[in-house]
Amino acid sequence: MKFSKTFIPTLREVPADAVIASHRLMFRAGLLRKLANGLFTYLPLGLRSFRKVENIIREEMNAAGALEIKPSVVVPGELWKESGRWDAMGESLLRVKNRTGGEFVVSPTAEEAFTATVRDELSSYKQLPLSLYQINTKYRDEIRPRYGVMRGREFTMKDAYSYHADEESLDETYRVMAKAYRQIFKRCGLTVIPVKADSGAMGGEGSEEFMVESEIGDNTLLLCEAEGCAYAANVEKAACKKDFEPPANLEEAKAAAAATAPLEKIATPDVKTIAALCDFLKTDAKRFIKALIYRAVNVEIDLSQAPGCAALKRTQTSPDAPAVYAEAFFAVCIRGDLDVNEAKLAAALKAGEVMLAADSDVTRLTGAPIGFIGPVGLTGLPVIADESVTALADAATGALEKDVHYLHAAYGRDWTPWMTADLRTVKAGDCCPVCGGALYEKKGNELGHIFKLGYKYTKAMNVRFLDEKGVSQTPVMGCYGIGVDRTLASVIEEHHDDAGIVWPMTIAPFHAVIVPIKYEGTVKDAVDELEEKLVKSGVETLVDDRDERAGVKFNDADLTGIPFRIVVGAKNLSQNPPVVEVKRRGSSDEARLVTLDEAVAEIAGMVSDEILNLE
Amino acid sequence: MKFSKTFIPTLREVPADAVIASHRLMFRAGLLRKLANGLFTYLPLGLRSFRKVENIIREEMNAAGALEIKPSVVVPGELWKESGRWDAMGESLLRVKNRTGGEFVVSPTAEEAFTATVRDELSSYKQLPLSLYQINTKYRDEIRPRYGVMRGREFTMKDAYSYHADEESLDETYRVMAKAYRQIFKRCGLTVIPVKADSGAMGGEGSEEFMVESEIGDNTLLLCEAEGCAYAANVEKAACKKDFEPPANLEEAKAAAAATAPLEKIATPDVKTIAALCDFLKTDAKRFIKALIYRAVNVEIDLSQAPGCAALKRTQTSPDAPAVYAEAFFAVCIRGDLDVNEAKLAAALKAGEVMLAADSDVTRLTGAPIGFIGPVGLTGLPVIADESVTALADAATGALEKDVHYLHAAYGRDWTPWMTADLRTVKAGDCCPVCGGALYEKKGNELGHIFKLGYKYTKAMNVRFLDEKGVSQTPVMGCYGIGVDRTLASVIEEHHDDAGIVWPMTIAPFHAVIVPIKYEGTVKDAVDELEEKLVKSGVETLVDDRDERAGVKFNDADLTGIPFRIVVGAKNLSQNPPVVEVKRRGSSDEARLVTLDEAVAEIAGMVSDEILNLE
Repeated sequence: MKFSKTFIPTLREVPADAVIASHRLMFRAGLLRKLANGLFTYLPLGLRSFRKVENIIREEMNAAGALEIKPSVVVPGELWKESGRWDAMGESLLRVKNRTGGEFVVSPTAEEAFTATVRDELSSYKQLPLSLYQINTKYRDEIRPRYGVMRGREFTMKDAYSYHADEESLDETYRVMAKAYRQIFKRCGLTVIPVKADSGAMGGEGSEEFMVESEIGDNTLLLCEAEGCAYAANVEKAACKKDFEPPANLEEAKAAAAATAPLEKIATPDVKTIAALCDFLKTDAKRFIKALIYRAVNVEIDLSQAPGCAALKRTQTSPDAPAVYAEAFFAVCIRGDLDVNEAKLAAALKAGEVMLAADSDVTRLTGAPIGFIGPVGLTGLPVIADESVTALADAATGALEKDVHYLHAAYGRDWTPWMTADLRTVKAGDCCPVCGGALYEKKGNELGHIFKLGYKYTKAMNVRFLDEKGVSQTPVMGCYGIGVDRTLASVIEEHHDDAGIVWPMTIAPFHAVIVPIKYEGTVKDAVDELEEKLVKSGVETLVDDRDERAGVKFNDADLTGIPFRIVVGAKNLSQNPPVVEVKRRGSSDEARLVTLDEAVAEIAGMVSDEILNLE
Repeated sequence: MKFSKTFIPTLREVPADAVIASHRLMFRAGLLRKLANGLFTYLPLGLRSFRKVENIIREEMNAAGALEIKPSVVVPGELWKESGRWDAMGESLLRVKNRTGGEFVVSPTAEEAFTATVRDELSSYKQLPLSLYQINTKYRDEIRPRYGVMRGREFTMKDAYSYHADEESLDETYRVMAKAYRQIFKRCGLTVIPVKADSGAMGGEGSEEFMVESEIGDNTLLLCEAEGCAYAANVEKAACKKDFEPPANLEEAKAAAAATAPLEKIATPDVKTIAALCDFLKTDAKRFIKALIYRAVNVEIDLSQAPGCAALKRTQTSPDAPAVYAEAFFAVCIRGDLDVNEAKLAAALKAGEVMLAADSDVTRLTGAPIGFIGPVGLTGLPVIADESVTALADAATGALEKDVHYLHAAYGRDWTPWMTADLRTVKAGDCCPVCGGALYEKKGNELGHIFKLGYKYTKAMNVRFLDEKGVSQTPVMGCYGIGVDRTLASVIEEHHDDAGIVWPMTIAPFHAVIVPIKYEGTVKDAVDELEEKLVKSGVETLVDDRDERAGVKFNDADLTGIPFRIVVGAKNLSQNPPVVEVKRRGSSDEARLVTLDEAVAEIAGMVSDEILNLE
């Protein structure tokens, strides 16, 4: 392909809104242009690399036994109502009304479309397991799209969904997918951090996120620094080794409280912070119970026996959706030096979302002013204890009166929670739950996610099959997603230098670029012949035939990051034998002179070696 | 690929709403399922054929020098306002409002997105010509989607747009595209009817539609039955050889009128139809002037000098859109035996749409009752004459009074029109405008369209470049579309029989299907080895390994239309040498016995021969 016949508008300037390397380089190297905020056009060079990522994903999905299908991108809102996501999804769901008033969704994911298709075709266990996937356009109405395609509104996602007669079969496919995902990222030349997490919906290991480290990552990861320990978790789910010993049960807690002095009220006028309070009370934040009032929406957990919740009613937004409490309030108690993790709290409550309650709600529900909440005597709402406070047999805490605190509050004696859970935000320096080593933090971007979905969609959408005994059953489901655009951008994040992109061979838009010093006469003839031979040997080749200074062409070759640069000049061609100059982009090695005769075989060999090395 | 490892849910029943063969067979052969009205899911077998159509289009576009890019599917409404299509497009345009109130379009075509991208990058004539294309999802909010993917709401289209420094360059690319389109359809095994038409926007031959004959076609085509004459036209633009001699000018018309008796009023009580009137007046429909009142909307033609139009004002809906009259009325005169073609009328008026006026408007504008309109004395609105009535020096026509007609109305003497045009609907039996042969009608579906767009978008969106002299110019544009889904469905329409699909080799989802009588023991071993060898020889092979009766497998092989069926049975394998039975789907030849040793080379040879034959 001749440079003059394609369309590679490289730029010297950096787009003003481009903060990260991939965003800058995708624009500068002529891979991408912006149509609007969060909406982009891949130009020819960018599309070549994009298709390579797609094809690696396609090959690995096919090898994993998944079958490619193509549902429409715009799908009926009806299906989303069946699954319950029409209501559950917020404003990031792009909803459309057509001319006849029909409601549609521009798909952000496709659990509904796939499950509806399977529902209509499934009759017998013999058809299972069934893994289907698509690589297709998705839309998420990001409120703040940025970082180029790293967080765009429209994007391409590979999403696979598997259906199984039983959980063992799901486990097997999940393991195959976990392996396929590692292989996909390896072939793309990406270093990913697989982050395991309990999915909640299924027992055991039910979810794994594939993260890349990124300064602008929207996930905080906790990793273990101990050698040989691969513990990695999203902060939303990260656990740590406990630095306390909770009592085994309430009896043990009461026994521990026997030695505690009686509960005592103490005036604490004008003491504003926990630190100041600890100073004043001559105690330590680790012996203080912090209580926070949270508002939770769409709560699925049963509250019929919970304090203060008798008047609450669970309702269904659609016949197949689970019944939920639209709103409920909770007092969450945690040790003074720790922070509540809202994701963990939402998971414990099976809530759509949790947030700190408004001051007016706090006062209404506790009868106490802000800043003096504590679990002792709190009856107006359910108290949820982080495990850390169940270990406190002698703690300070708010006394539900202005400027008053309790001393010697003992868990099991002076107060008992409605529920106990791990709600703590794990931080750098906490100890690894696997090996006890120190944890450290990284920012990460999620490229892929595999997930044992369980029965959520198959139940809500009433998918059935007959098992071996002829009994009607609901299949269990897994889902497996990868963002194609984000994967491509992450390859550039990991592989670039000051001069431009340094593509891994597998994703490079071309394997080699031939740079004639001047594209004319014998140089032109040699270049055309070399191009033809390289292409015949499977080397995707770009010829920079522009009438530009060599320096401009070298800069663009570096910027676009094509792995092999072959410089052809009249002087080198007049050697006996004639030679060309070959340089590997990103290598610190100098350019080498290779004879024209040997260049093709040598480069073709290196190209296929590098591709094989990533497999 | 083993049948049991893929997902090919064939059906005995025909879907109730499937009227045409491709719709029926795409469902029955397990290629497609419906998600909602006009929205479909391609299943694995259907997607394989779909991708083959895509790839043929891609290869031919690349060979034609077009470059593939990928803009987003959802594009900013802003761009559509710039081009004027936000207002001009009716309700078939799917508009979306996002969470922040931004307006977007789910692209039905992409003139705006491509032109915006080119606008930002174009500076010099050296960058031209530039041809860009995409193969991407499109949406048209069809009011009555039907016939499966033949008229769906969401579909995939290849749309290319070319930009040129001058019209000669556009002509050249247009010719290359015209050739590429013929090649695409040939490779798909399709018989297309290229229908040329003057595009209006550009001089000369500016538009060609590629039609396939179809009982449910939404286009009426007129074709010449004379051998060697390739005249084919859409009825919207079809011309015919005139069966009359219009006067060269008004002088000649007046001279012809000298011999005509004076204009005479005649009472015609209770005569309702033109036929009855002709009987009553002892004349012939060919000597009668029929006058019809039309309402036109968004009229671009200048009416400042037109009768009755002094009060009309042209306005712009957006700064770059052409100024139009929102509404105007016209009297159209045509010979009594002919019909007005509304598409031709709209083109002559540069109107968005034309329709017969309401009775109340007719009476208001002509002062005459319905049924008695004629051009003589008609002053309240512009009169437009079809050429056929300018040849009438002695005609009957309405006299603008109830139950009264004129006799001896002479063009040029008793009335003159404001404008003359070819407005006639050409019908079967009319004479070919090229060779005079008889025309016949066919119903056709449009698969592709190539079109010299001219300056419409580049002017409206202010695209500029500097020419060789450094002068700023507007590039001229061409566009070239093909519907992928419709092309695929048309292949099935043309290639099927009572038993199912009969794929051309180029589009077949698999080249060969191996049907073991029973997939076990030595048969299984032979089948697996045969599959492996076929795949190695480039023959895409499906193995029907299901535990089903041979009859069921044969029926499915016929239904899915895979070109070669290879039956492997224990008895034939025990021959010396062992043989298998090979049958070409759709051929009337009996199945042949081929030795197992020779089968691979023979089938591989036939597959590649058939593919080459279509190139």
